[in-house]
Amino acid sequence: MKNSFVMKGNICQTVTPTELDLHGNAYAVCIDGISKGVFDVLPEEYAALPLYDYGDALIFPGMVDLHVHAPQYAFRGMCMDLELMDWLNQYTFPEEEKYEDLNYAEKAYGMFVDALKKGATTRACIFATRHRPATELLMKLMEESGLISFVGKVNMDREASEALTEESAEISADTTVEWINAVKDNFQNTRPILTPRFIPCCTDQLMEKLRQIQMACGIPVQSHLSESKGEIDFVKFLHPDDPFYGDVYNDYDLFGKNDDIDTDVRTVMAHCVWSTEEEVSLMRKNGVFVAHCPASNMNLTSGIAPIRKYLDLGLNIGLGSDIAGGHSDSIFRAITDAIQVSKMYFRMVDESVRPLIFPEAFYLATMGGGAFFGKVGCFEKGYEFDAVVLDDRVLPHPQSLNLAQRMERAVYLGLDEKNITAKYAAGKRIQI
Amino acid sequence: MKNSFVMKGNICQTVTPTELDLHGNAYAVCIDGISKGVFDVLPEEYAALPLYDYGDALIFPGMVDLHVHAPQYAFRGMCMDLELMDWLNQYTFPEEEKYEDLNYAEKAYGMFVDALKKGATTRACIFATRHRPATELLMKLMEESGLISFVGKVNMDREASEALTEESAEISADTTVEWINAVKDNFQNTRPILTPRFIPCCTDQLMEKLRQIQMACGIPVQSHLSESKGEIDFVKFLHPDDPFYGDVYNDYDLFGKNDDIDTDVRTVMAHCVWSTEEEVSLMRKNGVFVAHCPASNMNLTSGIAPIRKYLDLGLNIGLGSDIAGGHSDSIFRAITDAIQVSKMYFRMVDESVRPLIFPEAFYLATMGGGAFFGKVGCFEKGYEFDAVVLDDRVLPHPQSLNLAQRMERAVYLGLDEKNITAKYAAGKRIQI
Repeated sequence: MKNSFVMKGNICQTVTPTELDLHGNAYAVCIDGISKGVFDVLPEEYAALPLYDYGDALIFPGMVDLHVHAPQYAFRGMCMDLELMDWLNQYTFPEEEKYEDLNYAEKAYGMFVDALKKGATTRACIFATRHRPATELLMKLMEESGLISFVGKVNMDREASEALTEESAEISADTTVEWINAVKDNFQNTRPILTPRFIPCCTDQLMEKLRQIQMACGIPVQSHLSESKGEIDFVKFLHPDDPFYGDVYNDYDLFGKNDDIDTDVRTVMAHCVWSTEEEVSLMRKNGVFVAHCPASNMNLTSGIAPIRKYLDLGLNIGLGSDIAGGHSDSIFRAITDAIQVSKMYFRMVDESVRPLIFPEAFYLATMGGGAFFGKVGCFEKGYEFDAVVLDDRVLPHPQSLNLAQRMERAVYLGLDEKNITAKYAAGKRIQI
Repeated sequence: MKNSFVMKGNICQTVTPTELDLHGNAYAVCIDGISKGVFDVLPEEYAALPLYDYGDALIFPGMVDLHVHAPQYAFRGMCMDLELMDWLNQYTFPEEEKYEDLNYAEKAYGMFVDALKKGATTRACIFATRHRPATELLMKLMEESGLISFVGKVNMDREASEALTEESAEISADTTVEWINAVKDNFQNTRPILTPRFIPCCTDQLMEKLRQIQMACGIPVQSHLSESKGEIDFVKFLHPDDPFYGDVYNDYDLFGKNDDIDTDVRTVMAHCVWSTEEEVSLMRKNGVFVAHCPASNMNLTSGIAPIRKYLDLGLNIGLGSDIAGGHSDSIFRAITDAIQVSKMYFRMVDESVRPLIFPEAFYLATMGGGAFFGKVGCFEKGYEFDAVVLDDRVLPHPQSLNLAQRMERAVYLGLDEKNITAKYAAGKRIQI
């Protein structure tokens, strides 16, 4: 059977948000890309499978990046002096204009995909730009990488630079339909996702057309929500009659499950820093995913999303790097950032809102975001087999460490940028 | 002349907090360890000096780590689930006890010094433990490294584990005098610094003795101040008559310049997250340095120090990694953390307090902390020549970048952990 093997090493995961699930010197079994579980002693029935013995290395589930902008990788770690709306106009839109040029796109997207391949991420929800050819190129590169992703051609027909704004709602919609038809059967691991940039960049006409496209194609949706105060004020100005930002997406049936019309649109919204109670309540009802991007929210001075509250309410939540609002493509970094900002929220804003603990943040980065892709994010039986093998011998220490300490340290010290030995997505080895 | 040369490359520094000072393809001249300035064209008088041409690399001043605990390097990136006082008792004190054993100390301190050598830090204010032999060993290792540092044998005679608490104020003081006498003339680059751990761990008797030692030896002082709410409450309980925490240090003339007794004790206090107006006012008057440690303040849920306010008041401020409250020994990381937490302070706490901008945070990491060591932190004429040469070709990008962008990106993306080509402290090459 293809993609069937046994992996041996120190298996570190979270199958619930509350605690680490650690198996020293254990076996993870993968049959046809699907996990059969973790075993301290290898069951006889799997004894004939190929055994990949990773010795004393750490084996984590692959990381899920629920929100990342591929074209912005080019200016990661720069331009960190503005808030969202000015940052978009001054830095982001001029860079995204360049993806009209396929040569530039090939160079830039090549670097992005290469970085993703080399890191600990196995799955991602990716924004491209508004350009169809460059988006298809990105999808081709992603497919070749072996990583598993949703990739979106961005829709935007107002409030951007002239070169980046699509000519009309019709053209934006028509291009989107052509794009979906062109890519939907082309790739195994790279699927299209409907991607209205955000409400400020999408006219009502465009949103209505996207609604119709979604209903016809049934593909999932990604966008931005309640990220920054200036943005939220602008949405209020554009849609004075909507009680909250997310309600605009909901008006066009692009906001998760809608019982009224019996649809279930898999939807992920990045940020949700300033979501009102009503908005959160609707996200919960509709099963909308939150892509929490703590580094971006710091860098763009957006604020701190109250993730503890969302967790307690049972929302779907994953982590995002949000390159280039976030400057690092490491989801390990997003884990530690999520913990840190939750501690600041507790200390500086509201001491009734407990900080996240390490297992919770690790869970968000794996099972939390993984749920957007199906059964993804751990090695329990029935889950797709995404794994990252990490050699932590590059991190010197003078004393003996237990597995929980090694796991926490690997994440805090960014071992994903230092030493990944091997990586698998749905049981297929990624060439790193 | 020893340590005299010309260095060529892209010189990036801040000589004021307000802007970057960039010199592409320029010359920095070092005579006998002291900078002669930066030149676009090499002056004739220096033409005969050895020329180190670093091509298109970036040349930064060395980073200054104004607060780091060498023995805690062993558990960096772990144990991030507690606040200060519990974290000390549960994790830190048990680790520090081990430095009674010189074999362990040699192994652990060897790893710490090696990490410091390989990073971008050229100067540091270091806490050892209360153990004199291990502290002397650390100083020997630091001296061998070529880095420049103050190292403190810690004083602590109460409120710690039995094994870590010194037997009495007398023994603590006597050991300290013996230590100072043993090390003061032994090293060129490694100087002793008086290090009362913090008020909770030091009896009044001990503080009085340290006062006398300081007056006799004239060495500088480092300690902790107003870091965490639990700590501050405890100091208030121990010293109910002192109007604020820093006043206790001041009572014993260990708090900077004191005009009343005509002393000028060079003093650095880590954290100052919750300093009251009175405390800040006294720090300003006395010229006390603040070691701002943003990562630690997040990890231990301490809070966000209002550095903008301190800058506006003209306080002396540098950055610290605070290993292992902070999990990274990178001062590049401290720069970006300082900017990020200042943005969160602005957005979540007080919108009248502007966030730090990149040049300001870079300035704190170089000139700001450097002032504790004398004329240190840039390549202006008369400054000690500390330099780090960074090859940013390891960071791929599809477009051309200007020097300001390359400088910001190198810091945000942690180039100090990826590719340091060469490193100099006071004109002497560090073997990395």
